[in-house]
Amino acid sequence: MRKSYDELLGLFKEACILDEVNMFLYWDRDVTMPKKGGKQKAEQVALISKLEHERRIAPIIGELLQFIQTHKDYENLSDLEKRNVFLIQRQYDKLVDVPADFVAEFNKQGVIANEAWEKAKDKADFSLFETELEKMVELNKKYAHYINPEKNPFDALLDFYEPGMNQEAFERLVKPLEEAIVPLIKRCTESNNQPDKTILTRKVPLEIQRKLNFDVLNVIGYDLERGRLDETVHPFTTGNYDDVRITTKYFEENFLSAIMSTMHEAGHGEYEHYVGKNGKYQPVGMWCSDGVHECCSRFYENIIGRSKAFWKYYYPKFKEITGDIFTDVSLENFVAVINKTEPSAIRVDADELTYDLHIILRFELERDLLNGIIEVKDLPKIWNEKMKTLLGYEVKNDAEGVLQDIHWSDGLMGSFVAYTLGNIFGAQIFGKLKEDIPEWEKEIEEGNLQKVLNWFRVYVFEKGNIMDSFVLVKEITGKEVSSEYLAEYLTTKYSHLYKLE
Amino acid sequence: MRKSYDELLGLFKEACILDEVNMFLYWDRDVTMPKKGGKQKAEQVALISKLEHERRIAPIIGELLQFIQTHKDYENLSDLEKRNVFLIQRQYDKLVDVPADFVAEFNKQGVIANEAWEKAKDKADFSLFETELEKMVELNKKYAHYINPEKNPFDALLDFYEPGMNQEAFERLVKPLEEAIVPLIKRCTESNNQPDKTILTRKVPLEIQRKLNFDVLNVIGYDLERGRLDETVHPFTTGNYDDVRITTKYFEENFLSAIMSTMHEAGHGEYEHYVGKNGKYQPVGMWCSDGVHECCSRFYENIIGRSKAFWKYYYPKFKEITGDIFTDVSLENFVAVINKTEPSAIRVDADELTYDLHIILRFELERDLLNGIIEVKDLPKIWNEKMKTLLGYEVKNDAEGVLQDIHWSDGLMGSFVAYTLGNIFGAQIFGKLKEDIPEWEKEIEEGNLQKVLNWFRVYVFEKGNIMDSFVLVKEITGKEVSSEYLAEYLTTKYSHLYKLE
Repeated sequence: MRKSYDELLGLFKEACILDEVNMFLYWDRDVTMPKKGGKQKAEQVALISKLEHERRIAPIIGELLQFIQTHKDYENLSDLEKRNVFLIQRQYDKLVDVPADFVAEFNKQGVIANEAWEKAKDKADFSLFETELEKMVELNKKYAHYINPEKNPFDALLDFYEPGMNQEAFERLVKPLEEAIVPLIKRCTESNNQPDKTILTRKVPLEIQRKLNFDVLNVIGYDLERGRLDETVHPFTTGNYDDVRITTKYFEENFLSAIMSTMHEAGHGEYEHYVGKNGKYQPVGMWCSDGVHECCSRFYENIIGRSKAFWKYYYPKFKEITGDIFTDVSLENFVAVINKTEPSAIRVDADELTYDLHIILRFELERDLLNGIIEVKDLPKIWNEKMKTLLGYEVKNDAEGVLQDIHWSDGLMGSFVAYTLGNIFGAQIFGKLKEDIPEWEKEIEEGNLQKVLNWFRVYVFEKGNIMDSFVLVKEITGKEVSSEYLAEYLTTKYSHLYKLE
Repeated sequence: MRKSYDELLGLFKEACILDEVNMFLYWDRDVTMPKKGGKQKAEQVALISKLEHERRIAPIIGELLQFIQTHKDYENLSDLEKRNVFLIQRQYDKLVDVPADFVAEFNKQGVIANEAWEKAKDKADFSLFETELEKMVELNKKYAHYINPEKNPFDALLDFYEPGMNQEAFERLVKPLEEAIVPLIKRCTESNNQPDKTILTRKVPLEIQRKLNFDVLNVIGYDLERGRLDETVHPFTTGNYDDVRITTKYFEENFLSAIMSTMHEAGHGEYEHYVGKNGKYQPVGMWCSDGVHECCSRFYENIIGRSKAFWKYYYPKFKEITGDIFTDVSLENFVAVINKTEPSAIRVDADELTYDLHIILRFELERDLLNGIIEVKDLPKIWNEKMKTLLGYEVKNDAEGVLQDIHWSDGLMGSFVAYTLGNIFGAQIFGKLKEDIPEWEKEIEEGNLQKVLNWFRVYVFEKGNIMDSFVLVKEITGKEVSSEYLAEYLTTKYSHLYKLE
């Protein structure tokens, strides 16, 4: 039995290494590949993906799983080992019935839909994307059916990205959040205390920004002997354990974008650095879910990166590095402006307070599409209406509306919820952190970030996948997952920032 | 039969892509990998190598080869297709009997020997390397036996790196070369016309050198949309077809090193750019042999890169980029000094004229070791004696003597001859090029390098592996391979440079 277990884990390890190689090929594509190398890179990715997939659904995996779990010695496995077996079984069950032909068709349609989406976005004309998106929705329904024929298709997809998640549970979570946020945004935008956002467009030369971003990584303790920071069009993080590479993007007249990207990706990156505590290349030593990954990135970006405490410590260094660009801007103004809230069109540029409304909108559209309640052709209209209702924002055209995100053209449906789940998890965990380290604010102000970040490392990063996300958050905080902590966190933060009564 | 052929080529293509991925993992290790990523990279390389090896010696390959070559329709295959089958068969025969355990043992000993070599070189003490090298020699004898049990072991190794090569043939080739070079070196070093080599150590800031090297690539037409130029400790080339990455190394007080490295690697790189003419990912669309690869690199580095014609064109641009560093140095002085000949210790720093003597020395030692004529413990003594006889150089210590090269510690024996074969092939092919383009010198002087380089591309690069190296050189030049053309080329060049009577 032990031998079978080792064999199973050995195959899992090979799949992980192939995944590492693949992630790295994508990194190269986006960071270092010469312009005309794309066709060859695609051949490499296709082969490595195929080999990885084979290792995840090979008949031998099914046989080993069956043998181990029905063996009389199964009970002698440790809890971690049982969790490994359970996770491999769960992955196997989800993937084994997805036909290889379907995967190929899905990926092919992804390429076609992607091209159509780019053109449509370029011309701000949804009709150019409509047919391909319709196909993508149908393929997603099929996919959901292969993953779990007994579930509602949207639930099957949600569960795929976040084990245990379903539409009803998400609705229950975010309803009170929406009710708390909407009036809060109104109060902030109507407040007389509006920060001067023109300082955000002050020109900061790229060389200074590069220095700044490497310095920020240094301050938060991101080990560049176990990672890299590079530049890309769409920032991302790739790799794991001792080689985790993050990326950012610099704009001369928007210095905040790169810093926040860097901190966001550093959160993802630190998660991957420490996730293997319970066993590298084992299921328990991998990331838990999309929601937890976003919890880590948004904890670094928002809860730490946009906190007054952090900037109280870092602003003098920031001013030193940027020379005389911000000498006239007080700490208070600076913190106010990097947290300024404002209904706006684009999700990725949204502030911490309005952000979740963008997600709720997408969740509702995906839900209604997958359940056949609305049709693809009506998306722009419904999108714009919801933007008006939820955010009070008048969408000007499809490019800044329904066409803004790449996800659907890539075939991802049901993945947006992870961002809001990440915010919810993060605020709830942060509540516990503040109980454990009451002096957290002072520590950060004095530059002792490690006290806070180490706590987060031990309670979140190092837990890897020893339990599912909702169980993990409950285990950490002692409370069921609820959005009330996020609502409370946002209310306190924004009441303070906008000096609300 | 056609289906079997396609299947065979499909498996070969997968092995090629895995090899591409592996080469690329090595590139990353040496160029972009964070410091502590080595252990993970090693896991990746080990897995991909294993998968590649499986695809080269899988039983199915043997079965397909057998089926195709005994099939009644075999004769209907085109010549290129037959060559593909032949090359896969040859590779299969060489690799199939090498046990996986032996490969693992060989690689493991490589790591151990490498560490011992580094320490020994560091302390200039051969005794610290002796035991590990003895093991390496024994492993190479075993390896040779697995590859071909019927051949003399050194012949088996030579044939492995250069199909058709054996010790007797190499001796026959280089004897007259040695006889021509040795007195020529003496005449040059005793001549009164010695260039002032101090200009080679003039400080050229690294930023200027970087600009210079990219400019040189531009001048020779190296397409950076299909490749990269990066910096490493030991320059190398990796990749193929549309993604070929070369590397170089800059020294502030030795500008020539980087330029010559860049041109050398660009020769390797251009070969890989064009080698797939007859079919990418097919045996016929791969490099022919180590010797031909070195022929390409040394053609770019020496025959073009150290020619008076090239510098007549490029020296004004060189002066422009380097500012006022070389304003006082005439073209004639410059060409003289970059070709200065001088008996010296280190192979990689040797000039074009003395270089082959360094190879002959290594060849003789490898030959005598593999044939059991000399013992590892006597190597330093024999090395130093041969350096004295061949080059008239007194070796000062083991670091600049027997310990200078990494090859043996890596387990490579029989691979040095490729450098001299490359020189021999190159000079002979250059003879034909001059017949076909009598105005070659004028074209280069006027900056029309492409006329000459295109000729080389069509006659050498694009031929890939449609025939073995010796047949290819005969096909191109109409003459049997001989070192007389290299002897003649060097005699003419150096008589002119040193104004010999």
